[in-house]
Amino acid sequence: MNTFGRVFKVGIFGESHGPAVGVVIDGVKAGLPLCEEDFMSDILRRKSGARGTTPRTESDEPRIISGVHDGHTTGAPVAVIFQNGNTRSGDYESIRDIPRPGHADYVASVKWNGFNDPRGGGHFSGRLTLPLVAAGVIAKKMCPGRIEASLVEIGGEPDRSRWDAMLDGASREGDSLGGIVECRVEGLPAGLGEPFFDSVESLLSHAVFSIPGVRGIEFGDGFSAARMTGSQHNDPFVRPEDGKAGAVPSKNGAGGVNGGITSGAPVVFRVAFKPTSSIARAQQTLDLSSGETVTLNVPGRHDVCFALRTPVVVEAVTAIVLADLAACRK
Amino acid sequence: MNTFGRVFKVGIFGESHGPAVGVVIDGVKAGLPLCEEDFMSDILRRKSGARGTTPRTESDEPRIISGVHDGHTTGAPVAVIFQNGNTRSGDYESIRDIPRPGHADYVASVKWNGFNDPRGGGHFSGRLTLPLVAAGVIAKKMCPGRIEASLVEIGGEPDRSRWDAMLDGASREGDSLGGIVECRVEGLPAGLGEPFFDSVESLLSHAVFSIPGVRGIEFGDGFSAARMTGSQHNDPFVRPEDGKAGAVPSKNGAGGVNGGITSGAPVVFRVAFKPTSSIARAQQTLDLSSGETVTLNVPGRHDVCFALRTPVVVEAVTAIVLADLAACRK
Amino acid sequence: MNTFGRVFKVGIFGESHGPAVGVVIDGVKAGLPLCEEDFMSDILRRKSGARGTTPRTESDEPRIISGVHDGHTTGAPVAVIFQNGNTRSGDYESIRDIPRPGHADYVASVKWNGFNDPRGGGHFSGRLTLPLVAAGVIAKKMCPGRIEASLVEIGGEPDRSRWDAMLDGASREGDSLGGIVECRVEGLPAGLGEPFFDSVESLLSHAVFSIPGVRGIEFGDGFSAARMTGSQHNDPFVRPEDGKAGAVPSKNGAGGVNGGITSGAPVVFRVAFKPTSSIARAQQTLDLSSGETVTLNVPGRHDVCFALRTPVVVEAVTAIVLADLAACRK
Amino acid sequence: MNTFGRVFKVGIFGESHGPAVGVVIDGVKAGLPLCEEDFMSDILRRKSGARGTTPRTESDEPRIISGVHDGHTTGAPVAVIFQNGNTRSGDYESIRDIPRPGHADYVASVKWNGFNDPRGGGHFSGRLTLPLVAAGVIAKKMCPGRIEASLVEIGGEPDRSRWDAMLDGASREGDSLGGIVECRVEGLPAGLGEPFFDSVESLLSHAVFSIPGVRGIEFGDGFSAARMTGSQHNDPFVRPEDGKAGAVPSKNGAGGVNGGITSGAPVVFRVAFKPTSSIARAQQTLDLSSGETVTLNVPGRHDVCFALRTPVVVEAVTAIVLADLAACRK
Repeated sequence: MNTFGRVFKVGIFGESHGPAVGVVIDGVKAGLPLCEEDFMSDILRRKSGARGTTPRTESDEPRIISGVHDGHTTGAPVAVIFQNGNTRSGDYESIRDIPRPGHADYVASVKWNGFNDPRGGGHFSGRLTLPLVAAGVIAKKMCPGRIEASLVEIGGEPDRSRWDAMLDGASREGDSLGGIVECRVEGLPAGLGEPFFDSVESLLSHAVFSIPGVRGIEFGDGFSAARMTGSQHNDPFVRPEDGKAGAVPSKNGAGGVNGGITSGAPVVFRVAFKPTSSIARAQQTLDLSSGETVTLNVPGRHDVCFALRTPVVVEAVTAIVLADLAACRK
Repeated sequence: MNTFGRVFKVGIFGESHGPAVGVVIDGVKAGLPLCEEDFMSDILRRKSGARGTTPRTESDEPRIISGVHDGHTTGAPVAVIFQNGNTRSGDYESIRDIPRPGHADYVASVKWNGFNDPRGGGHFSGRLTLPLVAAGVIAKKMCPGRIEASLVEIGGEPDRSRWDAMLDGASREGDSLGGIVECRVEGLPAGLGEPFFDSVESLLSHAVFSIPGVRGIEFGDGFSAARMTGSQHNDPFVRPEDGKAGAVPSKNGAGGVNGGITSGAPVVFRVAFKPTSSIARAQQTLDLSSGETVTLNVPGRHDVCFALRTPVVVEAVTAIVLADLAACRK
Repeated sequence: MNTFGRVFKVGIFGESHGPAVGVVIDGVKAGLPLCEEDFMSDILRRKSGARGTTPRTESDEPRIISGVHDGHTTGAPVAVIFQNGNTRSGDYESIRDIPRPGHADYVASVKWNGFNDPRGGGHFSGRLTLPLVAAGVIAKKMCPGRIEASLVEIGGEPDRSRWDAMLDGASREGDSLGGIVECRVEGLPAGLGEPFFDSVESLLSHAVFSIPGVRGIEFGDGFSAARMTGSQHNDPFVRPEDGKAGAVPSKNGAGGVNGGITSGAPVVFRVAFKPTSSIARAQQTLDLSSGETVTLNVPGRHDVCFALRTPVVVEAVTAIVLADLAACRK
Repeated sequence: MNTFGRVFKVGIFGESHGPAVGVVIDGVKAGLPLCEEDFMSDILRRKSGARGTTPRTESDEPRIISGVHDGHTTGAPVAVIFQNGNTRSGDYESIRDIPRPGHADYVASVKWNGFNDPRGGGHFSGRLTLPLVAAGVIAKKMCPGRIEASLVEIGGEPDRSRWDAMLDGASREGDSLGGIVECRVEGLPAGLGEPFFDSVESLLSHAVFSIPGVRGIEFGDGFSAARMTGSQHNDPFVRPEDGKAGAVPSKNGAGGVNGGITSGAPVVFRVAFKPTSSIARAQQTLDLSSGETVTLNVPGRHDVCFALRTPVVVEAVTAIVLADLAACRK
């Protein structure tokens, strides 16, 4: 459903070309300083316009319509809306019959009996990650730890010095590229996470897979762990470097989590994003009205690599999960 | 928390060396034929005793104590318990001070202020997957689709003909191996999954990461998708092979899910399991009482590769997710 | 929290004198005809202006900002907002120190450490029932049964012919009156409600007590049942009058519910509303800053009997409960 | 559904004449002293055998099968089961065709398509309040405030000196009596309860109406408040008697709750219980197989006034609600 969390609850609404997208956040602590300006730096990180992203830009101006008074959160739900602006709805009329490969057009139409809003992907649009980022800004004020996500691969290439050329090349060829985002959370206390079903990995992966275009997630050594022996992967506990009490795993191949519970070591995970589905090349797909294969040119201007815009979104969902876990902690 | 699901709800309880482990399943349809014998074939698939698994065996006898009358489910919650038997609690006394590498001993103790049951990992034991398998048996009776999971890699090796030698070798060396399980669900209708937060991948990954020892999950092309171009990864819709109406993706690199919603193609995902943490070799870890590094010999007999026992557990959580999604579908 | 429901989920936000109040409704069936005009008849029933209600009126214009396209619901969450207008914020400045008797001013300030929005009761205002009524309009389109609520008592008087005089009298005296609303739902199928905790009465009372000013609820014979003998209260099953199969209770003293499950007879319950807390007379209360008792004249113009405006609110929460129960029904 | 609560979660299972009834409680704080003996004093208060209750007694022996180790809760879910013993299943064979007036036999059969366990009311039996009382014992260890419930009326009579004669009279006549339970919670902090939907009254009434046989609930002045004027019902804040800071309502006609939030005054509510449905007299009901009205003699030995056994059940659900509210409090 469109809500996530038990005590710190986030609800997302809106459609790409409808009047607005927005978010309602319940369980926000009273007394946090909050104004619309606070959202801007994270919103800018998600914004398009840079190399490899679409030149189409939205205004992305947050408007707080509930839960803030005199510059502080009141304790009541915080609601933030973003008017939709720069839309070219005419571009999307043919989608009902000719679903775009890799998009949710077809499944949305099946699920909602053809009543889905097809314009720009409707409720399945990447535009919905904008209110998610807004929720993340508030979550970051409430959650423990310092969250930092960044792109570590584009098109399989970890060397950043080569990315500009790759993006330009893909753009010239009318193609697109995927990427991998790594997220790291430092400074979490040991003990977050709830057995049996609400392990830290369970909640983070749940939230991460709600971001459009994710194909996989791995923690610590991840898929490589499955190829290691126990003596290689096992992680002796050692004394914390900072002289604190307790123990920490020395190699952190488990990514900061043991048995679903934070160990006090940094939580580290990687998220695989597919290449942008909308490409400038002609593609084959099915015309549902005729039952024939047709050639489709997806109209509009699109990101060459939308993964460039996702690190702040990964941070947002991470903060949302951690804010809820921290709020539920007894 | 220890419950999962909105309408088909599964709650797990128990500790490895306590009186019993069990499961309560709410939202079970009335009138399903069900008896204790029905659980046995899946329970046997999880059982130890085969090559690469521990020779320690439990009786694993399910006892239905609620929700079944005259051989059918009644509509009331189904409760199934398994008495714990073959336990050697004395083996675990030193764990409080000397946490086993890779285990939850340390985090459990931090989280629960030292009151956790340390014997056999307590509530964090793999023993808890037994009631999960029982819940899966019931879920399979209620969910759409045919679910089949199998081990596709051990220690990085996809060729099954080499597995016996690898398991014997690891056993001789007192070491352990990880593995990768692939799960495939055929015959699902298009349209399952709920935006924004309850995508099919979100729910499946949530449930899968509750299984102890999981390090990663990927759908369809998974992490490889991040290294493909859009023209490679994109998936033209074609007519279904069986002559049905509608459309299906031709390559299924998205693993049966678009925009978080089932597309009608098989749902395919892979799960990375770490090597067994308990190995026969001596390991270094921290003695919390002295603050010194010590050499630990983990007592007891353990799986060389516990991933061998997990395909049926992956099937169980998959069935639980699909039963709930199907029950919630409007 | 500010959300209610498992599959048909309603979330309320806003504060009396903030920018807007609103509602997000998840789980709305796709394809329902819906436009802003549809909300107006129920909104008018809640509106003030009639005898016994405050002359202060708001514009109460709904704006749908998500979930509707081409005149039909899309399947995505429906969001409806109401701008706040006719506010006199200056009236409320003294509330922080001198809490109004019968209002939530004091508890809100304690709960939210003084950061609550005090203007007009903030999030605790009766204004929040406006988005609730909007949610009810959509719920009525999805729920089984015909819901009708009406005021059956004012100030203890069941004879409607005397109400005008009583209201005028109370108004002249600067006083206020309470009332009792009866709600009746005809045409429900037998079998709605979920044991053990989600009985029909449990869910209805949960929702009803979220309406400000409710002091009690009773079903069927209600409190009188506690004063009857079993032979008086027991209700023989008889054949349904309409010739349908099955059985119905003949007297319906259980109010349409047996064991928490609808019986097929009309669901009938009564709700007690307190008299309006804001009265024109001077009242005693505590000045928190001085610790002294002071005389308070609550400023503003208020309902003599706000219960007059509540039948449509009771209908709304009833519809919300029934829409969710119907959506969850297997 | 069969679970209640967000962080302190209670799940009930079992059927009257099945193998066992039980409860799983998630979110129990680690380190609480707990043993089976701890349950006995509350279980004895629910037990039958006294004047006005059935002479049929069960052993009611709790068995803790999860979540306790070395005499303390471990942090994992606590599971408690009660074997069912003294059952005469043969008594209930005719219920499928001839539903008992006032019981859930008929609705259970409709809801669950005839697969419900009909013996002793199955899952709808008052026997299910036994695990509820067990959950209450644990909740009382975690919740703030001192909870005390007692019967204040039998058959409309508040004078206790007359109750024995009334019970004997009803017993002689083969009839039954209802009653009213008052519950009072002292010592709660101000600020518990969550707007908009989780007011204290919402949660308490939700839980109370899950107890079989409840017809109504009212807080503070309750239904009388609807017959008072504002100047009568309004409640000036005064300084707390104990010299503490803050304010309390002087008359407490709101029952300790303002705007759904505890005010610091005692929470007071009354619950109406119907007379026992099973009476020794012959009753008319419908034979579903023939469609004819028949005379039914309900077999077995029953409580003359089951309300006598309910105060401890009301306390239990109250403790469960307060434990959850306290656990969720930020």
